[in-house]
Amino acid sequence: MSPFAEITSLQNPRIKDLAKLREGKYRRRTGCYVVEGLRELERALAGKARLTALYVCREAWLSEGYAPLAEKIAALPGMESFSLSPAAFEKCSNRENPDGLLAVAKMEKSTLADLSLPENPFLLLIEHVEKPGNLGTLLRSADAAGADAVIVTDPVTDLYSPQAIRASQGSIFALPTVFATNGEAKAFFAAHGIRPFAATPHTSRILWDLDLKQPSALLLGSESDGLSDFWMDDPATQRAKIPMSGKSADSLNVSAAAAIFLFEVVRQRRQDRT
Amino acid sequence: MSPFAEITSLQNPRIKDLAKLREGKYRRRTGCYVVEGLRELERALAGKARLTALYVCREAWLSEGYAPLAEKIAALPGMESFSLSPAAFEKCSNRENPDGLLAVAKMEKSTLADLSLPENPFLLLIEHVEKPGNLGTLLRSADAAGADAVIVTDPVTDLYSPQAIRASQGSIFALPTVFATNGEAKAFFAAHGIRPFAATPHTSRILWDLDLKQPSALLLGSESDGLSDFWMDDPATQRAKIPMSGKSADSLNVSAAAAIFLFEVVRQRRQDRT
Repeated sequence: MSPFAEITSLQNPRIKDLAKLREGKYRRRTGCYVVEGLRELERALAGKARLTALYVCREAWLSEGYAPLAEKIAALPGMESFSLSPAAFEKCSNRENPDGLLAVAKMEKSTLADLSLPENPFLLLIEHVEKPGNLGTLLRSADAAGADAVIVTDPVTDLYSPQAIRASQGSIFALPTVFATNGEAKAFFAAHGIRPFAATPHTSRILWDLDLKQPSALLLGSESDGLSDFWMDDPATQRAKIPMSGKSADSLNVSAAAAIFLFEVVRQRRQDRT
Repeated sequence: MSPFAEITSLQNPRIKDLAKLREGKYRRRTGCYVVEGLRELERALAGKARLTALYVCREAWLSEGYAPLAEKIAALPGMESFSLSPAAFEKCSNRENPDGLLAVAKMEKSTLADLSLPENPFLLLIEHVEKPGNLGTLLRSADAAGADAVIVTDPVTDLYSPQAIRASQGSIFALPTVFATNGEAKAFFAAHGIRPFAATPHTSRILWDLDLKQPSALLLGSESDGLSDFWMDDPATQRAKIPMSGKSADSLNVSAAAAIFLFEVVRQRRQDRT
């Protein structure tokens, strides 16, 4: 294991760099992002995260679980490891109560061509979701439902923001997630015989009447405007809605709607198996 | 319509009172809460909110829809209406970008005895949910699913906090919501032949194998610890889980899980009708 270099100066360029990684623009420019906290780093390690540098503050550790995890991460090939003073750690942490464990990771640049799908795939396509917390929750639900991959098109929020990573509960490291244009995704669906299903209120068709046992991709649009015309005007897109009987609420939030759709796929395919 | 009294002083006792209504303790003591924003107030008016005072700041209004809504609210019997300077309005607003419309409402003190239920009721019981945003989203989903009422036991967060009201998207004003102890709720279920169904991972039974066509109450516990022993140890409680196949996520968030359970009731009862 490489030794932990000590950092105490708040002017250390690494500390400044970590603080700058709070900005989406800087993350995109460097291709790096921050994973913070015991649970998140356990999952990053178990998943496919490409960790490059580890920062610890032993004074802030909350349990005996921190030391062995830090040692495991520090032992990864090519890892650089640093021990920070509480003041230095606090400067680069994204949390109100930092727990003294934080790592930098390289973004994955996967494309549709990198996906290796099973025979009867089940995908989630997310177009233009605005809130990082929603994006993370969608990944978490897709992972829990056993989706094979998530395709993000036209992103307006950063998948690698601290809020999205936190809300994903580690799914961001486990579930194959690729970026593509809508056009690329459409061509991919056509080439692989995958049917796109649009979750939208603008239809009379109910989701329970769909056949989701075939290769399927669930399409979700933005919280405020739903899916774009690209998908809504495409005759290949099958529309379906969740029937609403609310006295006041005019719709479900996007995470709730997604969970219902994703687990309808699970329900139908489970029946198929028995 | 009563005239709008002008308030410009930040020291006006009403302004101080509004600012204090941000605190849960003050809301509970006064039995009042704040509803802010055009959409929220439209829904409060359409729903059952007992509005008592209206505060406007015409300079901040964003569209032509504000004036007629403010007039409608000001015309309610017993309403007191005030016109605030931008500085005064900002002081009592809970929003980053206030839209110049805010009202005080009296909390409803409904109990189980006030509920008038249909023949085959479908209820949601929420025990110990911690985040106000989750609480609001649960009300929104219950409303969208056509639940007949929500019972809140052992509350640790305030149903009347600005975040809960906002996340509920107005459902808080439309859906009968009562507070009760777990013991009262259990007695109510027994008296009305309502079966309690616990959403929990601690069972092998899958939700799709339940019979939810009968009078049912879905029980949801806290984000971190789930339902208390009161319900989990009760032999009358039927347990069911959502089957998870996540590679990393160990569970769904409570809003996603609730949506799946709530709409399973809708799905089963829909089939019943056809």
